[in-house]
Amino acid sequence: MAVLKEVQQNYGKLKQYINGEWIESRSTQVYENVNPATGEVIATFPSATDEEVNQAIESAHAAMKTWGAVPLRDKAKYLFDLRQKFVEKADWLSRILVQDHGRTIGEARGTLSRCIENIESACSALLLLTKGEYVSDLAKGLDQTLYWEPRGVFLIITPNNIPMHAWSSFVPYAFASGCPVIVSPSKEDPLCAQAIFEVTREVAGFPPGLMNLVYGGRNVNDKILSHPHVKGVGFIGSTDVGRKLFARAGELGKEASINGNGKNHVVLTEDMDIKTAVNGLLRGCYGMAGQRCLGADNLLVMDGVYDKLKEAFVAASAAMKMGYGLDESTELGPLVSKKGQQKVIDFIDRGIADGAKILLDGRNATVKGFEGGFFVGPTVFENVDPDMFIARQESFGPVANLIRVKDIDEALDLINNKDDYGHSACLFTQSGAMARKFTKEADVGNVGINVPVPQPYAFFPLGSKNESAQGTAKTRIDSMRLFLDQKTVTERWA
Amino acid sequence: MAVLKEVQQNYGKLKQYINGEWIESRSTQVYENVNPATGEVIATFPSATDEEVNQAIESAHAAMKTWGAVPLRDKAKYLFDLRQKFVEKADWLSRILVQDHGRTIGEARGTLSRCIENIESACSALLLLTKGEYVSDLAKGLDQTLYWEPRGVFLIITPNNIPMHAWSSFVPYAFASGCPVIVSPSKEDPLCAQAIFEVTREVAGFPPGLMNLVYGGRNVNDKILSHPHVKGVGFIGSTDVGRKLFARAGELGKEASINGNGKNHVVLTEDMDIKTAVNGLLRGCYGMAGQRCLGADNLLVMDGVYDKLKEAFVAASAAMKMGYGLDESTELGPLVSKKGQQKVIDFIDRGIADGAKILLDGRNATVKGFEGGFFVGPTVFENVDPDMFIARQESFGPVANLIRVKDIDEALDLINNKDDYGHSACLFTQSGAMARKFTKEADVGNVGINVPVPQPYAFFPLGSKNESAQGTAKTRIDSMRLFLDQKTVTERWA
Amino acid sequence: MAVLKEVQQNYGKLKQYINGEWIESRSTQVYENVNPATGEVIATFPSATDEEVNQAIESAHAAMKTWGAVPLRDKAKYLFDLRQKFVEKADWLSRILVQDHGRTIGEARGTLSRCIENIESACSALLLLTKGEYVSDLAKGLDQTLYWEPRGVFLIITPNNIPMHAWSSFVPYAFASGCPVIVSPSKEDPLCAQAIFEVTREVAGFPPGLMNLVYGGRNVNDKILSHPHVKGVGFIGSTDVGRKLFARAGELGKEASINGNGKNHVVLTEDMDIKTAVNGLLRGCYGMAGQRCLGADNLLVMDGVYDKLKEAFVAASAAMKMGYGLDESTELGPLVSKKGQQKVIDFIDRGIADGAKILLDGRNATVKGFEGGFFVGPTVFENVDPDMFIARQESFGPVANLIRVKDIDEALDLINNKDDYGHSACLFTQSGAMARKFTKEADVGNVGINVPVPQPYAFFPLGSKNESAQGTAKTRIDSMRLFLDQKTVTERWA
Amino acid sequence: MAVLKEVQQNYGKLKQYINGEWIESRSTQVYENVNPATGEVIATFPSATDEEVNQAIESAHAAMKTWGAVPLRDKAKYLFDLRQKFVEKADWLSRILVQDHGRTIGEARGTLSRCIENIESACSALLLLTKGEYVSDLAKGLDQTLYWEPRGVFLIITPNNIPMHAWSSFVPYAFASGCPVIVSPSKEDPLCAQAIFEVTREVAGFPPGLMNLVYGGRNVNDKILSHPHVKGVGFIGSTDVGRKLFARAGELGKEASINGNGKNHVVLTEDMDIKTAVNGLLRGCYGMAGQRCLGADNLLVMDGVYDKLKEAFVAASAAMKMGYGLDESTELGPLVSKKGQQKVIDFIDRGIADGAKILLDGRNATVKGFEGGFFVGPTVFENVDPDMFIARQESFGPVANLIRVKDIDEALDLINNKDDYGHSACLFTQSGAMARKFTKEADVGNVGINVPVPQPYAFFPLGSKNESAQGTAKTRIDSMRLFLDQKTVTERWA
Repeated sequence: MAVLKEVQQNYGKLKQYINGEWIESRSTQVYENVNPATGEVIATFPSATDEEVNQAIESAHAAMKTWGAVPLRDKAKYLFDLRQKFVEKADWLSRILVQDHGRTIGEARGTLSRCIENIESACSALLLLTKGEYVSDLAKGLDQTLYWEPRGVFLIITPNNIPMHAWSSFVPYAFASGCPVIVSPSKEDPLCAQAIFEVTREVAGFPPGLMNLVYGGRNVNDKILSHPHVKGVGFIGSTDVGRKLFARAGELGKEASINGNGKNHVVLTEDMDIKTAVNGLLRGCYGMAGQRCLGADNLLVMDGVYDKLKEAFVAASAAMKMGYGLDESTELGPLVSKKGQQKVIDFIDRGIADGAKILLDGRNATVKGFEGGFFVGPTVFENVDPDMFIARQESFGPVANLIRVKDIDEALDLINNKDDYGHSACLFTQSGAMARKFTKEADVGNVGINVPVPQPYAFFPLGSKNESAQGTAKTRIDSMRLFLDQKTVTERWA
Repeated sequence: MAVLKEVQQNYGKLKQYINGEWIESRSTQVYENVNPATGEVIATFPSATDEEVNQAIESAHAAMKTWGAVPLRDKAKYLFDLRQKFVEKADWLSRILVQDHGRTIGEARGTLSRCIENIESACSALLLLTKGEYVSDLAKGLDQTLYWEPRGVFLIITPNNIPMHAWSSFVPYAFASGCPVIVSPSKEDPLCAQAIFEVTREVAGFPPGLMNLVYGGRNVNDKILSHPHVKGVGFIGSTDVGRKLFARAGELGKEASINGNGKNHVVLTEDMDIKTAVNGLLRGCYGMAGQRCLGADNLLVMDGVYDKLKEAFVAASAAMKMGYGLDESTELGPLVSKKGQQKVIDFIDRGIADGAKILLDGRNATVKGFEGGFFVGPTVFENVDPDMFIARQESFGPVANLIRVKDIDEALDLINNKDDYGHSACLFTQSGAMARKFTKEADVGNVGINVPVPQPYAFFPLGSKNESAQGTAKTRIDSMRLFLDQKTVTERWA
Repeated sequence: MAVLKEVQQNYGKLKQYINGEWIESRSTQVYENVNPATGEVIATFPSATDEEVNQAIESAHAAMKTWGAVPLRDKAKYLFDLRQKFVEKADWLSRILVQDHGRTIGEARGTLSRCIENIESACSALLLLTKGEYVSDLAKGLDQTLYWEPRGVFLIITPNNIPMHAWSSFVPYAFASGCPVIVSPSKEDPLCAQAIFEVTREVAGFPPGLMNLVYGGRNVNDKILSHPHVKGVGFIGSTDVGRKLFARAGELGKEASINGNGKNHVVLTEDMDIKTAVNGLLRGCYGMAGQRCLGADNLLVMDGVYDKLKEAFVAASAAMKMGYGLDESTELGPLVSKKGQQKVIDFIDRGIADGAKILLDGRNATVKGFEGGFFVGPTVFENVDPDMFIARQESFGPVANLIRVKDIDEALDLINNKDDYGHSACLFTQSGAMARKFTKEADVGNVGINVPVPQPYAFFPLGSKNESAQGTAKTRIDSMRLFLDQKTVTERWA
Repeated sequence: MAVLKEVQQNYGKLKQYINGEWIESRSTQVYENVNPATGEVIATFPSATDEEVNQAIESAHAAMKTWGAVPLRDKAKYLFDLRQKFVEKADWLSRILVQDHGRTIGEARGTLSRCIENIESACSALLLLTKGEYVSDLAKGLDQTLYWEPRGVFLIITPNNIPMHAWSSFVPYAFASGCPVIVSPSKEDPLCAQAIFEVTREVAGFPPGLMNLVYGGRNVNDKILSHPHVKGVGFIGSTDVGRKLFARAGELGKEASINGNGKNHVVLTEDMDIKTAVNGLLRGCYGMAGQRCLGADNLLVMDGVYDKLKEAFVAASAAMKMGYGLDESTELGPLVSKKGQQKVIDFIDRGIADGAKILLDGRNATVKGFEGGFFVGPTVFENVDPDMFIARQESFGPVANLIRVKDIDEALDLINNKDDYGHSACLFTQSGAMARKFTKEADVGNVGINVPVPQPYAFFPLGSKNESAQGTAKTRIDSMRLFLDQKTVTERWA
């Protein structure tokens, strides 16, 4: 637990990062950053003052020029160097992530791998996707070129559930595109942002102002977005907040990539391998304590396998080991915050009130030695009507709903008509034909076949359909489309 | 003039095209469609009723399935067939375009070439840009695929200046993407839309509902956009209207590609070839009677060549032959409407009132035999201050402003600080170094070197920066990003 | 049968096409072109003289300049026009193909669709794949561009089995790349080449010399390839001839794409749908009388389904209707030539001599009214040892070998160790896992899952591995890599 | 000079690297590796025995499976790690390169940057260029996928002039493609290969057999290439040797990428900046002692600037500081070998004998303290007839020919008709029109505008035309096409 001490000593009072320096805020507002496994305050942090926000914007604006003047091959060098910094600091970052967010150390290591993959993907994008196109003699003597140029400074808003992964889903690509950023992290786990900046600033070639970190969340976001120097926003969070942000960007003449909620279905068929499926469901339903956008919510189980699956799944769920994430044997960590914990408990209450049958109840979960932690145990419902609140809304906790279906068509009907978000859907089967049908017909952004969490690799976007996303440019490698603008050149010299 | 008669007989009363049929509207509202060279009414047209709007939307929604069920290679066949229809009807469409919009027959033929190029580009996009990506063994036994799927029904809003070109900048790509459209044309020249639909409907393979045509402009646009079946909007028009539309799409959770105004600069340097430049300027300033978004507005002329250029340009401007577009010898046609004509005259008045010196005055231009036409002659100002109204706002008429600059840096300073739109900028020079500097530093979407109208080919987007556009997906081939959505599939079979 | 008469009248004496004109050869050598269904001579043709070969090369060389001077957008226009000519003449070409090659009219129509798809794919390739790449400020002030330029004149050698499809697999792409061609068709069916040239020459924009047609086969091929103006060869034919050609090109410093034989396997598993499989096998084994490179040869049938499959397949094979291809009801046409027929009969004899058991014997097949035709009926062997001649060598006739296997591993072992060509392999199954395993592990260029002939679309290469191909550039869209060469430009203006 | 000692101690007797281990050869044949600046033997090395060659091939063949089983994201990790190793060891490698090859330390550092760029480019290629393509519902229910699979084991032959850069132009891409390699370096500087392998083997994830190092040059190359497990060869060296290798690969049914000689022209025009040009020429003509394939040979100087350029260039050439490469002030190092030095002296002799006028004679160059070094000083000819031996053949030494031309057309005529290789050509000018004309019309693989050495970045191929290259796949990122083979999959599940 030495790390916790290090964290408390070094980061007791979080600073903002502006124009290449750690700045102590003049703000009198102080927020507390809590370790969700212990309930202890591990750091405090401010809400940026207007002046600090403006400094961040001005320094980012200035960095457009300095970073723009760095030749492509040097930009590449620095991005590859960034990847190396993350490799070297992956363990340290993982431990910070556990203490700030609550997930298990194994999950945190996985997250760091995803972050590194995003940086690697951004390295590739810089070299291969920022290339322009050239055409000679389109008409007689007329040549045309298409360039990609950075749009400008971007606001990047990261959510509390994936504070590091969200950073990596935008920022390395912004750098690759030539765009400075102002990062505004969730108020639940700002220490993660702090740690990311600590590592990133070690890359010697990044000019001051290329990246800025300000605290305050919604307090500061609109100030940033409405500043003329800021050209758009990359957002991961809730659909509700995102929609408003998108409309606001629209009024302001700016660009946005909005990534919101999901209410994901997993279809379990009679011909699947049950053991594989149940193992997958544990990860899908309880991974990151149910706080991932691709996590499993509604389990659509076919009649013929319903009883068997239910029995195996409930038993396996009940056996999950809850605890502090830094303990290597822990399988399920706490919710990110007291508020988060309460929302999940309310969600479960609502399910019961609406008539669903609770098979496993995680509301009173406690972990010895961590009585102050925000834990909720694995929770399983059955007799869930597809129109119930718990079947339609995200729980953002370790809650699974068993729903009986008679065939793949009924399953697809529920997915396509009851899931407004359209974020993801999975199927466990051995049939090539059923897999193909499901893949084509499920109206969701991410499909999984025999996998519980259909997480695409960094060189793909996170697919997102319907209400789960807005803006034609998405995250990861696809965010290059957010950050880059097109310029054409038509020349005649002959 | 036989064509005019044909038009009047066949199209006296324009119909709407809904669900694969020409429908007579039940609306009692009647608009008039005027030939701007003669002032005669050539057709009347309705404003779609709510029921008609809904029919269009429902039929488009139904076409998502029918068109979606058409295999790729058949879709390709039909798009290539569409190209052939346009080749065969190019002359007829050109003549319609002249009579409805007013441009010269030569300009109209050029437009049809651009339309055909867009269809050809959409054919290519269907075959090569709708391909998904596939990766095997990303992790052990794990394969991933990225698909592109059509988003849904789109509203396409076309402006009065490029009624056919705007159609071709979106619609063939929508078809290639799998998206049905509802086209809402400008109320100034709806006959052009009618004619386009006449030709397009001849492609046997396009299912009913794939394309719908409704009249009414702003009256109907919001009804369409706010319907749940409609997933977004492609718009070419004014920045003001577009910005509002984008914000509205944002509120509704929809996608938009907005393409607005331009106030374009041409820099004329001491080492250029004057004759080439003057010829280019005639096309840039007066082409389509100044009603093109890439047309030239402010001519930034270097000291050393100012007098010579001025003399040559004014003389050449004065010699332009104005007239009816169907007359092959005509070099300059009328404005699209009486209102359009008046706005240009007001614009010129304002320039004089603000103190600019008028060198050539087109306000009282008349054409013998076409006294009812909406003509404005070539107009040239000098002593134009860069902050004057006429230097900052689009004239949308045949008006050129001569502005004296001392060097390329002053020219770039004006372009980058006085042109809010950032649509295009051109340079005439013989110097490779100056061309390179200009290309890199001009903060506009389309750069021209020794060309007056930097029109990119259909397989490039129309570059657009700053206030000239909004939305990360642009027009032409880039509109594929508007119409297509991404889906990922993660599979494990091993 | 009117077509036959038209053919005989117009094409009794085939001409060569050189420098944009049909030229009567001065050669005294005369070959006969026979209708394989009737045995009648339908045309005679020469072997090009040295002078004629040189004229063809010189005209092609001259066309490099004229075609090179045609702007990209006009090249596109002409290629799209070519597509339209093929659409209009598809029926006529199909009938010629039947009479010259012998396939059924249905097969011929399918071929024409493939040809048109290739032209459409070449249209797309011209617009989207000939674009260069551009990078700005790689180092400070240093820009780089990558262009694609045509390599020069190419020799295109087409085989007797797919005289039109082979043409379309190279020539439209050569045009798109800017490369003139000299086509040297097989001596078995030169009329097909003649007909293709008749249609292609109608495209007004193709300059003289862009395409040339000479007869003589191997007599003339080396003369052409060794001429300094000729930069390479595209070949579809036998692996033996191809290998020599590739080595010869190597000595001469030229490029080559060689596409040779296949000995293809179809694996039939216990969980497949038998009816689908048998229907597929009829097409795979007997389509084009077994003369297609992707046709099925060895049927690897799993124990549990062997007897059932055998019974159904032999019965269905025996019921195939043989006849003249122009008869719409014909299911199986003749071999392309007397020699081809004899080779198949010898192949069957060899199988019997080597100890395989013949279940259905097509050697004495006759068709009433077409007693002079080169027919061989459906032939099925069993008890075929995987090392027998008939199991290792291409039959190029309607011959199927039933081989019993115990599981997918044994099947893959045979495919990967007994098929030297590695051209294609298919599997019929319902299992997603087995399909995935087969796809990854079969060391062949083209895999089929539940399809008997894994023909990729024109915008993919024909995959080819091991001895079935040589040269890193393949056919169809991939032949762009054969025809185009790369040029880089490094510029510093700052 | 401590490095030299380290080299002698550790590398006195070079080992071969086979199956993941340093192996002492059983060969009795011993070659000497000499430091060209001192003439001292710094190491000895063997010629691989047949058994050693076979071991290398077998281990590489086995590595196809082990490396093939490494998931994509781990392969990426290891390639990015390789990049880091090179960053860390760049200084050490640079010093080895100087001592083994003779170039200056500045040039060596530049080389290492190029090597790192290639590794970075290979990282990107792995992530973005090995992706397959996927198409759904091509025909009804029919899906198709295109994969890229590694072809197999490749022989990589590296030349004496760029022993490290050549390695990086193939090997990282082979790894990215999944192909193991056997590297056969030039016998002039094998220590460089040794050092590269030392660094590369530190990447923990590369399996034994993925890379093998054998000595012996032509003695062993054919043994390797003709082995059935070896699927092709990547070669950089002389055109003569390469052509034979390509033909040999052809006979054997294998693939090859051959990169040979160049005889490069630089055109110097009247409107250029003389100082920039002369500085460039020093680098172009004398960089790496004239031993680079992109180095400048023939200087085509326009009449009006001839005298001025000649005077400035000869003076600057004479002032070059020759010396040991490890001395930071050295501007020109020795030739790679005694033999290399003698060839350059013979070349100069031949120029004089043929009647060219020698303006600066480097034949008797000596460096104090390095009397045993293989130095040749800057040498300048004038009155060189374009048909002379020295104007047509590569000198591979610091020799420049001044040739007077009257205009750009004469210059292009010489380039296009007297340079058989077509490797590169440069132009110094201020005119955009002249640059465009030169770029389009120079029939060479690499064009430079205002740069003396048109070296493209690693994410471009080294352009190569005519006799400078053979094989449609080139080096750097383009070598992915050499190493990867295409497989198509056609599926029907519906």
